[in-house]
Amino acid sequence: MPDIKVLPEPAGLPSPLPEPDVADLSLPVVLGALSDPLRLGIVRKLLLDREEFDHPCGWFGIDRPKSSLTHHFKALREAGVLRQRQYGLERRSEVRIADLDERFPGLLRLVASWSPDTP
Amino acid sequence: MPDIKVLPEPAGLPSPLPEPDVADLSLPVVLGALSDPLRLGIVRKLLLDREEFDHPCGWFGIDRPKSSLTHHFKALREAGVLRQRQYGLERRSEVRIADLDERFPGLLRLVASWSPDTP
Repeated sequence: MPDIKVLPEPAGLPSPLPEPDVADLSLPVVLGALSDPLRLGIVRKLLLDREEFDHPCGWFGIDRPKSSLTHHFKALREAGVLRQRQYGLERRSEVRIADLDERFPGLLRLVASWSPDTP
Repeated sequence: MPDIKVLPEPAGLPSPLPEPDVADLSLPVVLGALSDPLRLGIVRKLLLDREEFDHPCGWFGIDRPKSSLTHHFKALREAGVLRQRQYGLERRSEVRIADLDERFPGLLRLVASWSPDTP
């Protein structure tokens, strides 16, 4: 079972971009956001390979146009899966681990266990 | 935590309608099939309220045209979430509990714990 990396939140971070409150997270909406292999891969990589508190989209090494990536990250944020912060020109993402574990226990374990090479 | 009802398979059932093999089940595809509140409700009701081995779509008490229901049940079968069998004119469904637990442990627990009244 792969390990999900939890890092403490550093002080003085920028405010998160708009996102749903934890009480408003919707299971069908969250599952819809995760129903794409690229988006599932983004969340999985953040859970398993995280090196810093949050990461810009360039860190993921995904060979897609930036506008397409921006769209996928925004979809994950608006569903409540990712939290995004703006650092000057750079937008970084982390998974809302505590919120998702509270509302949908076991969901992130499923994502972390997924292998992108399966069907 | 609500209980998932597992019933033994009776002898002499009709063959299942076409469905993906357990090894071909895809997490993004399964999550996509579950990303709709109506479909999530169908699977949840089968998990929690099951009275027989499988149930026809009339049992669910969903106020939608039959053609719409047929579409949703088919989407769940083609994603590998439901197994369907034809009994004469009637098509009945059960959840592929063992297959889903094998490939995606924790997923059905999430579905069973979902409340249709949340956002």
